Amino acid sequence: MKIAVLPGDGIGPEIIAEAVKVLNALGESFEMETAPVGGAGYEAKGHPLPEDTLKLAKEADAILFGAVGDWKYDTLARELRPEQAILGLRKHLSLFANLRPAICYPELTEASSLKPEIIAGLNILIVRELNGDIYFGSPKGIRTATDGLFPGAREGFDTMRYSEPEVERIAHVAFQAAQKRHKRLCSVDKSNVLETSQLWREVMTRIGQEYPDVELSHMYVDNAAMQLVKAPKAFDVVVTGNLFGDILSDEASMLTGSIGMLPSASLDKNNKGLYEPSHGSAPDIAGKGIANPLATILSAAMMLRYSLGKAEQANRIEAAVQKVLAQGYRTGDIKTAGCQLVGTKEMGEAVLKAL
Amino acid sequence: MKIAVLPGDGIGPEIIAEAVKVLNALGESFEMETAPVGGAGYEAKGHPLPEDTLKLAKEADAILFGAVGDWKYDTLARELRPEQAILGLRKHLSLFANLRPAICYPELTEASSLKPEIIAGLNILIVRELNGDIYFGSPKGIRTATDGLFPGAREGFDTMRYSEPEVERIAHVAFQAAQKRHKRLCSVDKSNVLETSQLWREVMTRIGQEYPDVELSHMYVDNAAMQLVKAPKAFDVVVTGNLFGDILSDEASMLTGSIGMLPSASLDKNNKGLYEPSHGSAPDIAGKGIANPLATILSAAMMLRYSLGKAEQANRIEAAVQKVLAQGYRTGDIKTAGCQLVGTKEMGEAVLKAL
Ligand SMILES: CC(C)[C@H](C(=O)O)[C@@H](O)C(=O)O
Ligand SMILES: CC(C)[C@H](C(=O)O)[C@@H](O)C(=O)O
Repeated sequence: MKIAVLPGDGIGPEIIAEAVKVLNALGESFEMETAPVGGAGYEAKGHPLPEDTLKLAKEADAILFGAVGDWKYDTLARELRPEQAILGLRKHLSLFANLRPAICYPELTEASSLKPEIIAGLNILIVRELNGDIYFGSPKGIRTATDGLFPGAREGFDTMRYSEPEVERIAHVAFQAAQKRHKRLCSVDKSNVLETSQLWREVMTRIGQEYPDVELSHMYVDNAAMQLVKAPKAFDVVVTGNLFGDILSDEASMLTGSIGMLPSASLDKNNKGLYEPSHGSAPDIAGKGIANPLATILSAAMMLRYSLGKAEQANRIEAAVQKVLAQGYRTGDIKTAGCQLVGTKEMGEAVLKAL
Repeated sequence: MKIAVLPGDGIGPEIIAEAVKVLNALGESFEMETAPVGGAGYEAKGHPLPEDTLKLAKEADAILFGAVGDWKYDTLARELRPEQAILGLRKHLSLFANLRPAICYPELTEASSLKPEIIAGLNILIVRELNGDIYFGSPKGIRTATDGLFPGAREGFDTMRYSEPEVERIAHVAFQAAQKRHKRLCSVDKSNVLETSQLWREVMTRIGQEYPDVELSHMYVDNAAMQLVKAPKAFDVVVTGNLFGDILSDEASMLTGSIGMLPSASLDKNNKGLYEPSHGSAPDIAGKGIANPLATILSAAMMLRYSLGKAEQANRIEAAVQKVLAQGYRTGDIKTAGCQLVGTKEMGEAVLKAL
């Protein structure tokens, strides 16, 4: 089995190194090949998603991705900026299903900005569509307006769109995820304003009939943003489009107070996937050896489970992470009173030992 | 001075009644005329925004609005649903600037789902553009896709768009609001993905040069959704488009835990405005006399300040509300230990007494 390892920028290389050590310690024989991506891709080959990197990602059975982005690329043209790499990989590899768990680990309840009784035990899953919506809808651009409020003015425009098969396939992923959990699925849209959302809601409702064991509800995105703050534990699985999912999955991660702990998976229809931490490249702490590698290590566990058919090894890693938390090891981002502050490498070592 | 009073549905009539009493107690001579809107408009005249109601709103110097919506209208065609009234008023009256304060009152810190140290003293202002964006952008509809991932499939689509003058006018409102506060403005967009946002950011930056005393920053909407949870007090004024503003202003209100306290203003370029509580019509508690009228009373204060040139009367009302909170009066939504639970009318009476 071949894994493409794409460390990227900022803390990416540091956290990926620990996840690779953990994978190597499992006693399986993975072929791992590393390639530059994001700012690193631009530096090495003049493009955030170099051809060779894309080729490797296509050939591999799974992709382990660090993080991309740094302020130093802010002045580049948009098509050369680091984040285009992740958009490109999602698109070219048809990774349409993003699974983002938001979990509050018992040992880390204090790290949240929310009250313990609101957040303790939180375990929700956000399923975000990744290949459609206003991210990729054409036409888009800058033009002279011919109608609207100020005809003749320069305007920016983008197209939001979802077709029935696009909504159907993400619906199936979400309903099936809900079946394996508490059988409640909340579909989030803005169907009181958007035509795209009306179609979305219609299709979700129709596909829901194939899953009578799952309780489907619908919620407007503004209300969802509120309910996540007010009573996040009321959710089980949430399914939504690319744009709303971008916003809500980040909001949900931050509720836990420990975004440095949260993995994510982006899957195609055959469960080939890209696995990355939910947090970003954190250029401000890059190279200092203090970043939390656990989200990346947990992403490797998700990879074993979803793409490589090694659920037991995934369980082993997850149990090891639980153990190091119980042992009191903490990186700076999740530091709580009375615990032992460790760096990136020490945290990786602790997980290896716990395996 | 003429005030159009539009109570609407659910708890709307109850909370509006208290605000009207407060206005009447000021010793000013306002002409107030009431008209049906939302579900009530549909019941009375077959349309959520009946012609006479719109005419009254146009003639008036300001509009005091309750809330619209009820589950019983869920099966109506979209153009007949209650929320079309509010969209129609915003559009027909060119109310492009929505001001949504998110304030955590000292007495109500406990009501928040966030920890007291995160939320105590919160006072941020969200400025949301209301006339443009994907809310009103054409074309939109349901059609057969000719390109994209599934050509030939049925798809829903909407158009996000902002022209330069639209961004300019909301930018001026936001910068001027920031000048009267802590002189920090955060513009929220998704310019790493959207062309509309690129134009937005460009114009914000350009207009910013006219306000050298205001510190302008830019933030992606996903990050803003996170920072609001993590450290909301880091914000002063936030400016954003219609769709992102819908989501973020609701998220921000809910952070305070007392959305029943938060007013809002929607202004045109001459400071004529519509004033409404940030919360909804709450059909589940309608008619029970338990709704919190304070957001509506505070909306009336905003109306006096922004549209009617009566800042002193606005201050009087706001001081009276502070006083009833200090006296320990609470409706159910903001009930905290040791305080006196009162109903809608009693709360209105308490404010009248405190005036
Ligand atoms: C970097 C950016 C384009 C990306 C997105 O908006 O999808 C990121 O925010 C994410 O959620 O993975
Ligand atoms: C009712 C709905 C159309 C409206 C909106 O989305 O603007 C509401 O959520 C609001 O924020 O006032």
